[in-house]
Amino acid sequence: MTLTPLATLYGPVAEDMILVEDLLESTKQVELPPLRRMLDHALQARGKRLRPALVLLAGHFGDYNLNRLVPLGAAIELLHTASLVHDDVVDGASSRRGRPTANHMFDNALTVLLGDYMFANAAEMVTRTGSLHVTRLFALALMKMTSGELDQDAAAFDVGKDIQNYLGRISGKTAALFANATEGGAALGGCDETTVEALRHYGYSIGMAFQIIDDLLDFTGDEAEMGKPVGSDLRDGTITLPGLLLLERYPENNPIRKFITARRDREERLQEALAMIRSTEVLDASMEMARDYVRRAATAIAFLPDDEAKQSLIDIGDYILSRKS
Amino acid sequence: MTLTPLATLYGPVAEDMILVEDLLESTKQVELPPLRRMLDHALQARGKRLRPALVLLAGHFGDYNLNRLVPLGAAIELLHTASLVHDDVVDGASSRRGRPTANHMFDNALTVLLGDYMFANAAEMVTRTGSLHVTRLFALALMKMTSGELDQDAAAFDVGKDIQNYLGRISGKTAALFANATEGGAALGGCDETTVEALRHYGYSIGMAFQIIDDLLDFTGDEAEMGKPVGSDLRDGTITLPGLLLLERYPENNPIRKFITARRDREERLQEALAMIRSTEVLDASMEMARDYVRRAATAIAFLPDDEAKQSLIDIGDYILSRKS
Repeated sequence: MTLTPLATLYGPVAEDMILVEDLLESTKQVELPPLRRMLDHALQARGKRLRPALVLLAGHFGDYNLNRLVPLGAAIELLHTASLVHDDVVDGASSRRGRPTANHMFDNALTVLLGDYMFANAAEMVTRTGSLHVTRLFALALMKMTSGELDQDAAAFDVGKDIQNYLGRISGKTAALFANATEGGAALGGCDETTVEALRHYGYSIGMAFQIIDDLLDFTGDEAEMGKPVGSDLRDGTITLPGLLLLERYPENNPIRKFITARRDREERLQEALAMIRSTEVLDASMEMARDYVRRAATAIAFLPDDEAKQSLIDIGDYILSRKS
Repeated sequence: MTLTPLATLYGPVAEDMILVEDLLESTKQVELPPLRRMLDHALQARGKRLRPALVLLAGHFGDYNLNRLVPLGAAIELLHTASLVHDDVVDGASSRRGRPTANHMFDNALTVLLGDYMFANAAEMVTRTGSLHVTRLFALALMKMTSGELDQDAAAFDVGKDIQNYLGRISGKTAALFANATEGGAALGGCDETTVEALRHYGYSIGMAFQIIDDLLDFTGDEAEMGKPVGSDLRDGTITLPGLLLLERYPENNPIRKFITARRDREERLQEALAMIRSTEVLDASMEMARDYVRRAATAIAFLPDDEAKQSLIDIGDYILSRKS
């Protein structure tokens, strides 16, 4: 399967994405030289800008006012980037997608403050939407994100957590911000309540699928493209969906349990766990759960008019399932 | 000089401060047990709640609507506490005012996330004021705070920074949030522009005085009351006002310069620097600068009606100058 180029994927809003880019670029213009250098580094890693695209696409179902939608898109991307900056400090990661992390280039202390500055900038940016309601939703999304991250951190090396707990965690950690993008975009567009709720549900569901695929790629992705070794999550004690399915379906003599409790030969135990995950049906079962979330996303917006924006949202669901890194 | 009890100091708003306390208390009620434990620890350290008191006092000059003022007071206190939580991670501090820090009790990773959660909660709280303008001012204050902290961190062990740079740093690090408290309170109270600006100026000025005194206490305070050894800032490479005055007034053979560049006998060099700071006029000169800021604060609000709230603001200025820890 070939990946759809972003220009096609983002359909009717593709060209307007440059406005989000420009607004993000403008946040780097600060007086303090060390802060400017750090912002430059953090915002240089051009991602797909998926979340801002979702804001604009959701706004397309209502009054497509870019003066309000673009600041929300930029705010959400800033918030997302700030949370990655702090995650890398929290995980002690030295590289992300082949680039050195901020904490690796600068130090933990400055990087914590860099993330704080970006959170603050995001909060300021969202007020430019002119909507207190959307500003409040944004703050609530950040509360859910950090709760989800905290829960994941607190649950590390704990084989007693179940799939329900995992879904709760990724719902906060990832889906909340996707839901915020589509709900916020629709609310700024002045859509009616049913449309806002449908788009929120769509965003939430593809956010869940996005994180499940992300967690799958930790087992199946290409090391060079991912920029980290296979099985990194499990090595760090984070047991994601495939591992939880393995624990649930093969309770006897389970190699994950052995790895988690092992005091020595940890690398050997880890490799045994990875081998069993790859040789059983748990990866397929995880993929099926991701597909199911994408189906729910499509169902949620089925009643909306069949236009370019809707097609784009459906394509994004397929894209999320097909990504390889 | 005896310290005025807070109930007297906060005059007409003293009794309403319990509402701020209750709202802060309510933020601890979260589902996740580890987060609940951490919030409990972070918010347990009952401070003087000076910033929320300033919000209520400023609001007293207009329409004293507690439904709007109390959320701003709680939001500012949450933001202040969150920034202390992150500062302790940044500084690797193990205790603050005699209590173990969050990073010492839990770990750096969880503590970064705890601070993020509290920032998010503060952002959500400020939207309860119902004012997008005040929400925006709040986000801008956080941007200034983190810039100030970053600047301080980047300037550590640099003897080339001058007093102007120091004033810029503490203006962001401390005075911005004091200014936000009084400007926000006045704006929520619907005060006219001149009153809002006067109260902003008052808050800014006592914030500057507050930080100068804080920095002075690092040299003159009681170790037991402060919960940290004398000269901790300088030891960490942070050169505050007394040190900068010493560098400026005694350029030859300066012991601070020697300490900063010393490769060995660092403790001896530090003690020499501390001794010279104590034996020269630089502590008095610093105190005089703090007094000057408090005078400016009083001048800014001189035109306001002579009521209890104004008296309280003037008393707070005197209190800031008199505090011993």
